[in-house]
Amino acid sequence: MTFVEKLEALRQLMLAQQVDAYIITAADPHISEYLPAHYKAIPFACGFTGSAGTLVITQDFAGLWTDSRYFTQAEAQLSGTGYELVKLKVPHTPEYINWLLEILPGGAKVGFNHELITVALALEMKNRLAQYEIEIIDIDFISAIWPDRVGLPVENAFLINEEAAGLSISAKINEVRTALKLNKANYHFISSLDDIAWLFNLRGKDVDYNPVTLSFALITPAMVKLFIDKKKLSQTDISTLNEQGVTLHPYGEVAQALKSLPKNMQIFIDPKRTCFGLFECLPKSSKIIAGINPSAHLKSLKNNTEINHIRKAMLHDGVALTRFFKWMEDHLSREKITEWSAAEKLASFRAEQASFVGLSFNTIAGYNANGALPHYSVTAESNQEILGNGLFLVDSGGQYLYGTTDITRVMPIGNCSASQADDYTLVLKGLIEGAKLIFPEGTKGYQIDSICRKPLWEHSINFGHGTGHGIGFFLNVHEGPQNISPANVDVVFKPGMITSIEPGIYRPGKYGIRIENLVLCVPKGNSEFGDFLTFETLTLCFIDTAIINKTLLATDQIAWLNQYNQMVFEKLKPMLSDEESEWLKVKCQPV
Amino acid sequence: MTFVEKLEALRQLMLAQQVDAYIITAADPHISEYLPAHYKAIPFACGFTGSAGTLVITQDFAGLWTDSRYFTQAEAQLSGTGYELVKLKVPHTPEYINWLLEILPGGAKVGFNHELITVALALEMKNRLAQYEIEIIDIDFISAIWPDRVGLPVENAFLINEEAAGLSISAKINEVRTALKLNKANYHFISSLDDIAWLFNLRGKDVDYNPVTLSFALITPAMVKLFIDKKKLSQTDISTLNEQGVTLHPYGEVAQALKSLPKNMQIFIDPKRTCFGLFECLPKSSKIIAGINPSAHLKSLKNNTEINHIRKAMLHDGVALTRFFKWMEDHLSREKITEWSAAEKLASFRAEQASFVGLSFNTIAGYNANGALPHYSVTAESNQEILGNGLFLVDSGGQYLYGTTDITRVMPIGNCSASQADDYTLVLKGLIEGAKLIFPEGTKGYQIDSICRKPLWEHSINFGHGTGHGIGFFLNVHEGPQNISPANVDVVFKPGMITSIEPGIYRPGKYGIRIENLVLCVPKGNSEFGDFLTFETLTLCFIDTAIINKTLLATDQIAWLNQYNQMVFEKLKPMLSDEESEWLKVKCQPV
Repeated sequence: MTFVEKLEALRQLMLAQQVDAYIITAADPHISEYLPAHYKAIPFACGFTGSAGTLVITQDFAGLWTDSRYFTQAEAQLSGTGYELVKLKVPHTPEYINWLLEILPGGAKVGFNHELITVALALEMKNRLAQYEIEIIDIDFISAIWPDRVGLPVENAFLINEEAAGLSISAKINEVRTALKLNKANYHFISSLDDIAWLFNLRGKDVDYNPVTLSFALITPAMVKLFIDKKKLSQTDISTLNEQGVTLHPYGEVAQALKSLPKNMQIFIDPKRTCFGLFECLPKSSKIIAGINPSAHLKSLKNNTEINHIRKAMLHDGVALTRFFKWMEDHLSREKITEWSAAEKLASFRAEQASFVGLSFNTIAGYNANGALPHYSVTAESNQEILGNGLFLVDSGGQYLYGTTDITRVMPIGNCSASQADDYTLVLKGLIEGAKLIFPEGTKGYQIDSICRKPLWEHSINFGHGTGHGIGFFLNVHEGPQNISPANVDVVFKPGMITSIEPGIYRPGKYGIRIENLVLCVPKGNSEFGDFLTFETLTLCFIDTAIINKTLLATDQIAWLNQYNQMVFEKLKPMLSDEESEWLKVKCQPV
Repeated sequence: MTFVEKLEALRQLMLAQQVDAYIITAADPHISEYLPAHYKAIPFACGFTGSAGTLVITQDFAGLWTDSRYFTQAEAQLSGTGYELVKLKVPHTPEYINWLLEILPGGAKVGFNHELITVALALEMKNRLAQYEIEIIDIDFISAIWPDRVGLPVENAFLINEEAAGLSISAKINEVRTALKLNKANYHFISSLDDIAWLFNLRGKDVDYNPVTLSFALITPAMVKLFIDKKKLSQTDISTLNEQGVTLHPYGEVAQALKSLPKNMQIFIDPKRTCFGLFECLPKSSKIIAGINPSAHLKSLKNNTEINHIRKAMLHDGVALTRFFKWMEDHLSREKITEWSAAEKLASFRAEQASFVGLSFNTIAGYNANGALPHYSVTAESNQEILGNGLFLVDSGGQYLYGTTDITRVMPIGNCSASQADDYTLVLKGLIEGAKLIFPEGTKGYQIDSICRKPLWEHSINFGHGTGHGIGFFLNVHEGPQNISPANVDVVFKPGMITSIEPGIYRPGKYGIRIENLVLCVPKGNSEFGDFLTFETLTLCFIDTAIINKTLLATDQIAWLNQYNQMVFEKLKPMLSDEESEWLKVKCQPV
């Protein structure tokens, strides 16, 4: 079927079922960042491949609501599909609800698959539509028109042992139970795959980049149920789980298990990480206690074992990156290198490293104008050769058995202009201001964000993404609950949290600059004014000083840069060949 | 009656009416910052004179819940009254609700005067207590035991004309009506006195420091009712109001007017600035649209007329402050000067200025240890002589017909230590970082706050209050909705907003340092990254450079300081005597 035919088929189903508007979301029942192929309904329906978007269909109109990152891409991909691009004013907001309120009459029906939307969003929609007597109904039209839909992934999963994770499964479950008690909850349902992965020391390969496996969990003070396809696990791992008090249940039985819960229970769920369909399975008499999953808070505080492992992963990552940048420099004049081939080469250097599992996200390798797209993903058409003069931005990361990495560097190619040097230096200033910040206990990410932006603001420059995100331990590269962004996320920074710091400057059509390190929140001692915290930089890869405008850096910023590069050199040296070591030594010379 | 006897009388009334817990709030029906004497029920009941606190009484316990500013004072004032101090963990939060939930059985009754509590707080209490089947009831026991209670204030009120206010009453009403239309509201009830003062170009003297008059307003697309004691107004002002479409109604008839509203209206109220008692008068069928009063947003954006007037007021204030600090320097060695007498002297210098109306708040004049109390208020017992070595902190402000001022300076007395100089310089750095900040449109106060704190954080120092607050135009010295604080207040800074910037360092038992200027948000032009804003400093009073540790200041910070002092000198010079001018010139010498 063509996209037009699919749209027509959907409209026929809508007519038959008296559905006035049908919504197709980019989600799975776990509210994952990366969707298994089975759930990629939007590319199936209209060909749009961006990571964020919502389709809304009526008999008169079909639209894709998406944010500015994808305007160009969406316009191209939607051409001739029958769908129109609707530009979001505020990213990640359900602006289509306003549109539905405008165009639908009272008594209308809005259909969508309740398993593919968060509790929070579905309730917001339900309540707002109800004010105008518009009803929501749970209906899946996609399956009906997708005969060759791929099944759910069934990749093997495995446990990482206590020596790797720093805590046993039962110890983690006890921590969650303590949190539940504080919240006066006697049941806790978890859908989010990284929370489950952390809690059960469980990893898998069901989705790209995130080492998680499809599963649900249900916890009470007395029992722990893990809903998972048992075939994915080895007999040893099944025994270990059982020994730690975990009983296994078929993945497909979760809805029935929720329907069978006793009446009048106090059930803790995360409304932003639980799907509405399963929420609706809970007995009506349940008292819902809504909050961020306790496991999200607990896993954000890396334990010493995890931290030491991550330091090891950073050494491996740093070696791979050093070899990559040296290879780039050695080969640029000798052979054709493109964004694509460079990304492949970098992946191959990472793959040589011990305990490498895979990439932690799709490498962003953008030369000049492509580097100005913060979420650029190289395609056959966009792929640029890296030659002439310019800036090559590489944002990449690896999954290692001992940690997850995420790093951005910008490599100057040929001759760079003074304004490129200025921009590069301002971005670096932003990174340094964050990296060396001292801040009191209780500080939230939005307080750190503006401090990293200030050096850019001084020159009337800003960037459209957050300054930093949390990151998992051999888990998701984007992990909450903390982040560093202008949004008022009410989570305080605590020792053990790892976040990126990644300010940027993007000159559309010209070039992009972003410099990113991962930093660990650590205590800085106390004073009569309380306890203070600071960051320890974990990422180990030289920051190129070739195009720095030193006059823009303050003395303490220059000192930080020189110390950082010196540390990188000293830590990586033992793992490098003499030739590599000599090369890196030059790169790490103080400015 | 003694406090103990009053408490006993309250408990007898509670027994008689079967009230299990009785709450006495520090509020009036307008949710004012400064209460008319009639509403000072807490000092009446227990003698505590702090500005924030709540009494909760049961048959077994009577407590005052207040925050850390008042712990010492409350312990002293409550001694022997039958009330105990309960220390708030988080300031301005109703932690007593948790306590009530712990100690009261299901079916209990909690009484309080519904006119003396916000809608937001009363609903929170009602909902949380209802979960445990505890009921709230509207009851006033205070009037019954307060035979000689003073009546409501009946001070004269007056209109400021359009030339002073920059906008006519009807133009302002139209702006509010536009906002109501956007919010789909057809009625709007306003209780907050400063909103009413702004909207009707009305000023009064009913409470200390805030030039407002007791009144309520009710607005629809077709009519405007002002509830006010007509005797307060001149016949001319009454005519003006009538000409602008405003009808006057007795203050005491507001409750009846609300009860008589048509059914099924969409009524806009601000739940944090409306009392619960009057909210309960609205017809049950009303649809409540809750939000910050549109007038609060509108009045925060000062118009050009107001701004020009404020600049004039700053000249007058600057002259008074210059004379005061010169007088201090001239007389310190010659006569006994105390915190009290200094504050009196400063007030007298302000009173000499044209268009002076009164102080904008109770002057904070604290020498050494007293300066370490951010909200210090001098009493006969605490009053210190200013002599020897130390730091004298003066936070003061004036109400002029042409604007409201608020300024803090620290005067070094005798010899100061190196660490005092360092602290003074760090606070100054914080002020300068805020004053010269460039930031993108859309920036919120919490993003600016941390930038002002960073110079302190670098030395493991912090302060416990916000960095800045909004301020009115010849109105309240604390005015929302914007502020500069760590709290995630979701209000963006816009050109025309005036706020204070006032970082501080407080060394308990030793000294306090705070330096405060008022700044106006102004456009800074645009770039390819959007529109940018910055601040223009309005306050005109030299910043003492005698104890600055110049090595702690960056070059651009020194430049800001020298330019600021130079500007102060140039602007004030024409209004000073030769002798004063010579003196100020020395104070304003570049460092």
